[in-house]
Amino acid sequence: MEDRILLAHGSGGKLSQELIVGFLPGLANPILNKLEDSAVFEANGRLAFTTDSYTVQPLFFPGGDIGRLAVCGTVNDLSMSGAVPMYLSLAFIIEEGLPFAELKTVLASISQAAGEAGVKIVTGDTKVVGQGCADKLFVNTAGVGIVPEGVDISAAGARPGDKIIVNGTTGDHGIAVLSQREGLTFHTPVPSDCAPLNGLVADMLAVTKNIHCLRDPTRGGVATTLNDFAGQSGAGIIIEEESIPVDKAVQAACELLGFDPLYIANEGKLVTAVPPEDADAVLARMKHNNYGTRAAIIGEVVADHPGRVVMKTAMGASRIVDVPAGELLPRIC
Amino acid sequence: MEDRILLAHGSGGKLSQELIVGFLPGLANPILNKLEDSAVFEANGRLAFTTDSYTVQPLFFPGGDIGRLAVCGTVNDLSMSGAVPMYLSLAFIIEEGLPFAELKTVLASISQAAGEAGVKIVTGDTKVVGQGCADKLFVNTAGVGIVPEGVDISAAGARPGDKIIVNGTTGDHGIAVLSQREGLTFHTPVPSDCAPLNGLVADMLAVTKNIHCLRDPTRGGVATTLNDFAGQSGAGIIIEEESIPVDKAVQAACELLGFDPLYIANEGKLVTAVPPEDADAVLARMKHNNYGTRAAIIGEVVADHPGRVVMKTAMGASRIVDVPAGELLPRIC
Repeated sequence: MEDRILLAHGSGGKLSQELIVGFLPGLANPILNKLEDSAVFEANGRLAFTTDSYTVQPLFFPGGDIGRLAVCGTVNDLSMSGAVPMYLSLAFIIEEGLPFAELKTVLASISQAAGEAGVKIVTGDTKVVGQGCADKLFVNTAGVGIVPEGVDISAAGARPGDKIIVNGTTGDHGIAVLSQREGLTFHTPVPSDCAPLNGLVADMLAVTKNIHCLRDPTRGGVATTLNDFAGQSGAGIIIEEESIPVDKAVQAACELLGFDPLYIANEGKLVTAVPPEDADAVLARMKHNNYGTRAAIIGEVVADHPGRVVMKTAMGASRIVDVPAGELLPRIC
Repeated sequence: MEDRILLAHGSGGKLSQELIVGFLPGLANPILNKLEDSAVFEANGRLAFTTDSYTVQPLFFPGGDIGRLAVCGTVNDLSMSGAVPMYLSLAFIIEEGLPFAELKTVLASISQAAGEAGVKIVTGDTKVVGQGCADKLFVNTAGVGIVPEGVDISAAGARPGDKIIVNGTTGDHGIAVLSQREGLTFHTPVPSDCAPLNGLVADMLAVTKNIHCLRDPTRGGVATTLNDFAGQSGAGIIIEEESIPVDKAVQAACELLGFDPLYIANEGKLVTAVPPEDADAVLARMKHNNYGTRAAIIGEVVADHPGRVVMKTAMGASRIVDVPAGELLPRIC
């Protein structure tokens, strides 16, 4: 194989086939190995189906890369509907000239993350575009999962009294990518939180199926997710500034750069609204999961100010937490 | 709304929401309208799952555009497994500065093609990258379909004696896109054949479920698909040059440009291998479908030269039809 990707690697001809065969060892499974146009598998019941494209720049950052991101992002979107993620598709748009070594590293990450999450890559596609027509590599994953009986999670499901829980510190991913891109160095490096959360969600659902809302606060951060809950549920949300877990290095970076960690993207975080009677048990169970050790109740759903999210600050003041109007940090996912 | 796409349209914030709401009228359905991270629907049995990214350049060409292509391509990949296409995901990577009017035209095509194919767009994603980081617009679709009982189609299913049938002229799509891109004008314009083939496949399966191979000859053309059948089935294939339908204008363009229509991409064509006893009935039924009026038997599967495709030319000679080694026409899908 050449050491860089050529246009011909996307042609459907011999070089395409070499590329596919080169991919296979890391991703092999009986469904993918058939190399048909579609993957075929058995499934029964309620299915969840989702997609995301990943355009993160740079491709590699502390705590992850575009490959890990592409698997975790779609696994997490499925998990947020309570589904057990099963099968992923994988589609590359590659800029001509991308070093093979980088693609191989991304593939190794995809394979590792898929293994960790227990999902199979069953179908895929590769396109190559000329130099200057894409920025190195874009990845799309779509995913299919199975929603267990009795689970009915929706951003419209929040009810007054529900407790709002996050599974850990907010803003790590956005700051990690930004620092890498801009060459910023902090005393303590900030790794991305990029992680598959299906295991954590399974733990939560083992405590109660009565989880009202569940969403991963990616673009737009925790602030945007809470606004989705409030807006779609027609309820108000109050959060306590002091209870929101923020990593010290992220806090310092945000202060330096003028960002609010509540608006910074995460890739291994979830926000949930659960009935008050289940909140403590859910929280306790989350803390026992590797991806929930710093879980915390950060607020609650109220009947007041429907559609609005209000934060009580450490100083005792209240302020509205609005949806961001513009672009804070492009290309972080 | 602004008249061009801004980075902020991909931010997850207010402009993102405006964009999504702007998308909805054309694509609305009860599953998509919930705007959850995953679409949830009931499905039982054998499912087909596939994905493709579309990077065609230019975005608009005679007979279609990237939107119609993105729907038809994925509908066809599902159909080639015999599945009834049901649900599609839709993910955009947009270059900052793309005129809104172009995006709206693409969305209208998506909506029209999805309507024609009878599929629903149920989940999606939008990313915006800076100017120069993508070439206007890339689209990814993934799709889920249901494989009817008794259908078992595979590129490995060809058996000696099977007849090879195509549903019409070969090479239209590639030549249409190339002419548009290079500003070539022919006496008779060549429109792309871009079309959803699920109805045609349903017609064929109504004649017999015993269809051995079925594939849409996109990148690499009919030649590559036949090589897939021969290679994966461990059988030989003989085709008759004179029986292969080629549009006159496509033939003329190919002669002028030095291309072989057998290697040019199609987006509304299928190649099938069916048992000899079913071939005439399948062919007759195909000819009654709008997308099969020029269907023809072009050859047959043989026990000789396993893995190889041989063409008998009009002059009576034989030549091997190999897989293309390099890139013929980049960015045609």
